Amino acid sequence: MRVGIVGGTGDIGEGMALRISQVHEVILGSREVEKACTASDTCHLTLEGKGLPCTISGVCNQEAVDRAEVVILAIPFQHVQGTLASLTGLGGKVVVSPVNPLARKEAFLFTPPPEGSAAQLIQKLLPGAKVCTAFNNIAAGSWKALDAPFAHSVAVCGDDPAAKELVKGLVSSIPGLTPFDAGPLAVSPMVEAITPLLLNIARFQKMRDVGIRFS
Amino acid sequence: MRVGIVGGTGDIGEGMALRISQVHEVILGSREVEKACTASDTCHLTLEGKGLPCTISGVCNQEAVDRAEVVILAIPFQHVQGTLASLTGLGGKVVVSPVNPLARKEAFLFTPPPEGSAAQLIQKLLPGAKVCTAFNNIAAGSWKALDAPFAHSVAVCGDDPAAKELVKGLVSSIPGLTPFDAGPLAVSPMVEAITPLLLNIARFQKMRDVGIRFS
Repeated sequence: MRVGIVGGTGDIGEGMALRISQVHEVILGSREVEKACTASDTCHLTLEGKGLPCTISGVCNQEAVDRAEVVILAIPFQHVQGTLASLTGLGGKVVVSPVNPLARKEAFLFTPPPEGSAAQLIQKLLPGAKVCTAFNNIAAGSWKALDAPFAHSVAVCGDDPAAKELVKGLVSSIPGLTPFDAGPLAVSPMVEAITPLLLNIARFQKMRDVGIRFS
Repeated sequence: MRVGIVGGTGDIGEGMALRISQVHEVILGSREVEKACTASDTCHLTLEGKGLPCTISGVCNQEAVDRAEVVILAIPFQHVQGTLASLTGLGGKVVVSPVNPLARKEAFLFTPPPEGSAAQLIQKLLPGAKVCTAFNNIAAGSWKALDAPFAHSVAVCGDDPAAKELVKGLVSSIPGLTPFDAGPLAVSPMVEAITPLLLNIARFQKMRDVGIRFS
């Protein structure tokens, strides 16, 4: 599967690339091609240094969209509108949103847009795309810590059954991750809201990179 | 600890009573004393049949409030306002809300009141009470299945530090449960929203009584 990561030089994007590129071809995008190439080089060094496979290439965000079968939007919520306005060709694509709108006030709080969730806003901005929610509740540090235990449940929401199956397949292809069909895209607020909760739990327990498992 | 359960004859309340009464004195309340006595008798039979301790007494909801140090509101969201209006003496008490406002539409959705969560509504209705969120994400069937594995993380929110410590102590005294301080009461929406998500995951995966663990 050719997986494009828009915002691949961010903390989450780079962590995702490290794990996904061991299994799939990853096209890592950034606003600046040079940054994408540097991130790609770092990933190659890290993975090849461990004797692990790596098939990342660093490109601009638009090329990551154009070449990918599945596009992951690894961008902070506040950059969603601007980034999507700068890209073309997302209509018809399978678009994965791991985006969580949150703010730090007296604690980390879920601060969704009027659409209900980041995923629903993205679907509104990209009416032709097949938007799925996935990977929302895995911390950047957890993606990156290749030598630490990695065992997470991943809730997947979406309104297009074939796209959801594809995304569930992507999730289950990554060692340590188990996909759970959580229903239509309207369930995304409940998935995204877990992330600020995990940040609070980490903070008040002095834990790092807290994740969630369903059983 | 004397634990009062308001709505103790409901599915969740009876399940809670079965596990909590092995460790603490449980005062199981209902609108009708007879129903409370029947539920109490059933719990005694179940637990004593297994050679387990049981210290439940069945009373009316008001007596459960009056005699308890900690009051658990094991009532559906739509009965919160009516039930609280019918009770006195909750001011100053530690009140635990396991209540989750949800509705079944195209999927199970989180449907909070304008206050943000059931717990925040309860705090508004009971300004003198020390309201904490806890036990929100454990299914009735899981509470009741005494012979099945029982291992859950329990997010605890609250604005009164001493009350929160008491509730965390109550949680950790129940075998299989691990409390996690999730911060102030304002975090409750993120805890309550997990329950409709778990119901969706159970439905779409054909699982039963799905729970969560943080790690």
